[in-house]
Amino acid sequence: MLEWEIFASEFVGTAILILLGAGVVANNLLPKDKGKGGGWLMINFGWGLAVFAGVYAAWKSGGHLNPAVTIAKVVQSWYDPAVTFNGQSGEFAAPITFSFFIIYIAAQFLGAFVGAILAYLAYKKQFDQDADPALKLGVFSTGPEVRSYGWNLVTEAMGTFVLIAFILVAGGTPTMVGPLAVALIIVGIGASLGGPTGYAINPARDLGPRIAHAILPIKGKGGSDWGYSWVPVLGPIIGAVLAVVVIYAFGLSTLDITAWGIGA
Amino acid sequence: MLEWEIFASEFVGTAILILLGAGVVANNLLPKDKGKGGGWLMINFGWGLAVFAGVYAAWKSGGHLNPAVTIAKVVQSWYDPAVTFNGQSGEFAAPITFSFFIIYIAAQFLGAFVGAILAYLAYKKQFDQDADPALKLGVFSTGPEVRSYGWNLVTEAMGTFVLIAFILVAGGTPTMVGPLAVALIIVGIGASLGGPTGYAINPARDLGPRIAHAILPIKGKGGSDWGYSWVPVLGPIIGAVLAVVVIYAFGLSTLDITAWGIGA
Amino acid sequence: MLEWEIFASEFVGTAILILLGAGVVANNLLPKDKGKGGGWLMINFGWGLAVFAGVYAAWKSGGHLNPAVTIAKVVQSWYDPAVTFNGQSGEFAAPITFSFFIIYIAAQFLGAFVGAILAYLAYKKQFDQDADPALKLGVFSTGPEVRSYGWNLVTEAMGTFVLIAFILVAGGTPTMVGPLAVALIIVGIGASLGGPTGYAINPARDLGPRIAHAILPIKGKGGSDWGYSWVPVLGPIIGAVLAVVVIYAFGLSTLDITAWGIGA
Amino acid sequence: MLEWEIFASEFVGTAILILLGAGVVANNLLPKDKGKGGGWLMINFGWGLAVFAGVYAAWKSGGHLNPAVTIAKVVQSWYDPAVTFNGQSGEFAAPITFSFFIIYIAAQFLGAFVGAILAYLAYKKQFDQDADPALKLGVFSTGPEVRSYGWNLVTEAMGTFVLIAFILVAGGTPTMVGPLAVALIIVGIGASLGGPTGYAINPARDLGPRIAHAILPIKGKGGSDWGYSWVPVLGPIIGAVLAVVVIYAFGLSTLDITAWGIGA
Repeated sequence: MLEWEIFASEFVGTAILILLGAGVVANNLLPKDKGKGGGWLMINFGWGLAVFAGVYAAWKSGGHLNPAVTIAKVVQSWYDPAVTFNGQSGEFAAPITFSFFIIYIAAQFLGAFVGAILAYLAYKKQFDQDADPALKLGVFSTGPEVRSYGWNLVTEAMGTFVLIAFILVAGGTPTMVGPLAVALIIVGIGASLGGPTGYAINPARDLGPRIAHAILPIKGKGGSDWGYSWVPVLGPIIGAVLAVVVIYAFGLSTLDITAWGIGA
Repeated sequence: MLEWEIFASEFVGTAILILLGAGVVANNLLPKDKGKGGGWLMINFGWGLAVFAGVYAAWKSGGHLNPAVTIAKVVQSWYDPAVTFNGQSGEFAAPITFSFFIIYIAAQFLGAFVGAILAYLAYKKQFDQDADPALKLGVFSTGPEVRSYGWNLVTEAMGTFVLIAFILVAGGTPTMVGPLAVALIIVGIGASLGGPTGYAINPARDLGPRIAHAILPIKGKGGSDWGYSWVPVLGPIIGAVLAVVVIYAFGLSTLDITAWGIGA
Repeated sequence: MLEWEIFASEFVGTAILILLGAGVVANNLLPKDKGKGGGWLMINFGWGLAVFAGVYAAWKSGGHLNPAVTIAKVVQSWYDPAVTFNGQSGEFAAPITFSFFIIYIAAQFLGAFVGAILAYLAYKKQFDQDADPALKLGVFSTGPEVRSYGWNLVTEAMGTFVLIAFILVAGGTPTMVGPLAVALIIVGIGASLGGPTGYAINPARDLGPRIAHAILPIKGKGGSDWGYSWVPVLGPIIGAVLAVVVIYAFGLSTLDITAWGIGA
Repeated sequence: MLEWEIFASEFVGTAILILLGAGVVANNLLPKDKGKGGGWLMINFGWGLAVFAGVYAAWKSGGHLNPAVTIAKVVQSWYDPAVTFNGQSGEFAAPITFSFFIIYIAAQFLGAFVGAILAYLAYKKQFDQDADPALKLGVFSTGPEVRSYGWNLVTEAMGTFVLIAFILVAGGTPTMVGPLAVALIIVGIGASLGGPTGYAINPARDLGPRIAHAILPIKGKGGSDWGYSWVPVLGPIIGAVLAVVVIYAFGLSTLDITAWGIGA
């Protein structure tokens, strides 16, 4: 059944994304790790390659792994009715319907939750070490360097804007270039716009693991910072909607790219 | 209207370039950043991937994002009359005319100016911290490690020479390899020739954000170093013109690459 | 004779893998090295590019270089009888038979053993320096930051799971994208899941060099830590088998990717 | 005239290689540089991308940039008479003759010499600073961490072996994948085998700039270490010859790769 295939695809892809993404942060932040203090560029590459792996695994569902991407597809369908969630047509297409929307979002949050638990298990003995509770939370969820919900929202929206705009435009390139290009843009967004808030740019990436943090019996853990939790959910949604609107307003969609004689 | 499409493409692309490019410098230099002290290679990758994102967004205009590229195209047209600004022919071609030249240059400077403002907003709370005014200027514009206008000009010209020569030659490869190859060459030029001056290699990249720095109400900012501002404008222009002349003088243009049986 | 070609291919590929892989660790850990203290990301890139080089060299045998991959192919053949060890059909196919299985495994362990000796010779004068015996062993074999055989096994199984799942899925992409994609996923697994145990994720990669360490007349060497040696053998095997089972259970194999209209 | 085209191609490519390669070392080692202390991975990427740029520029001559590659082609022609220096056939082919051999070698050394002078000019104000003469020499030529001509020769031969074996094998992949693959293998060889000697793996890369160092009026320079100068010339030649012999002895040449159903 297609619904199950889409759910499974998106669930496994997002779980791998968070397993690797939370993993690289654990490697960098927790004590007794080979990669302790490996630096921000290592984290950027870790998340970029986490997306790389996750997008491949989720090829059937189009590799969203991120509610912001799913929402962007809905908005895009207002401009172009031929859009489907997974880029397929015919019997394999996941059409823009409310039930498929729920399937994507549910699979993403559940996958992120499970991925965070897997990362916890991979780093179980590191979590058992004494460490600042903020570092342990940092493996799961993002947090701002300077707390200012308004400006943090701006930063998260901008990072997501770049991601969604890139996907919309570069999506017109020949198939299978996609995963590497998206991986690289994640490295770039992290290096360039990740400084203030740690670039969630994905509601599931932040909220799913935050719930896992609240539930898991992590040794010496602190609070889950629920006060900040809405920022990396709302910011990416704002950025995603804006990106679709701006790309179409400026005529930069690549839907007509072959008409221009490119990428044929 | 094609003029508007070209302007919009080049404007959005350059704005994304500077948003991400200024962003990675802010992340590296300003206080209270995840990537503080991330190092020169992180900056190189940040700028390289900024070009990667910007070139994709500006696919309609051929992804110049840089007056040095636009000028190189003009010089190239003296050798090869078939050249157009955006590599297209027929109804979508932006021909080598003075009016298109102005459209490109204006879009680039305006895009760079707006991109710098966006980067300022993304890092607003970091700019609000106390920091050396030179670091705050460094997010916007380049500056030399050893001030010597003549030698700084030489370094900027050389870096741009390599960029333009690369574009001329690698441009002969099949379409869509381009953005990644250009991104990587920016990483390489930064690592290899960015040491003395910080590699503007692009007049718009330096002057647009410098104007933004002068205008924006940045907390605790110093001067905008107008004395140096002409170097990263003139140096790249010299390098770009020389690159076209040398590539054609040595017969290394790839216009006849398929005649050689390569890249077909 | 095909058996010899397969053996030679796998032997040379694995030897190059370990020469470069052990080399980057030596460069990072031993005294009197240009790359001393280069950091975890350098090690990740070193191993990723070691796989890159090794997979190209071993193109005739499909570039396994890892008993976990070979075992995964056996398990995969239960789901899909058309699978061969080297992805070929007809006269060049290495079928899933016990004799070819032995040829692959033997070539991998022997190649890893010889590669470790070559790395020792390349770094002979560095091994002659005074250094902690644990560092000298670390060039050859992995070891845990926190010793806990059960949890170390979990981490090694997870890392291998991601590798094998990736190969199963991304293997459906057009030929020759493979080596770079696998290289990048090795960088990613190292950055993300290499923290606790140093990511052997390959029985031959760990045991072959460990035997070399035991035999070679390394100046000031300590024990070869045989107590841990079974973990990086068993963990990867568990992870590999689980990956095949899960990918098929979730319907994410790319065997039918062209039916979906992707990658044609 | 084809001879001139080949000379010009190889000369410009090697000059760009050394301009960027010497440049990244200068950036890392000399005082008053943005990239001061950027680390070994930055140097590896700098050299890798220097090769990337140089190989594209030298597309007409096949992008050797290295006498070891040229010599490997000569040896390869003993196994396969269809080999030409630049991979072309018909009117654009550079056949394996003594006069073309001299053209390649002369262009490489002259290009390396000129590239080193350009790097000196790009970093003129940094060379004018007070610094250890060994660092200033290190921008031009390689030197061992532990001086031992025999073992240094082994290390240089091994690094070149991997490079040439990779080119022989990966050269069978579809055209234009080449420059990126070679760039990455240079990053890998540097990270993995560059520790003891700094990986010249190219006689022209070392000797050309060493002559430039001896001639240029560099402020506060020391000797040019002629005692070591033969090692990075002889080592790469040994490694190159061995690589061709081993690849053919093991049957790993990709000349028959399409017969195997790969890369078609």
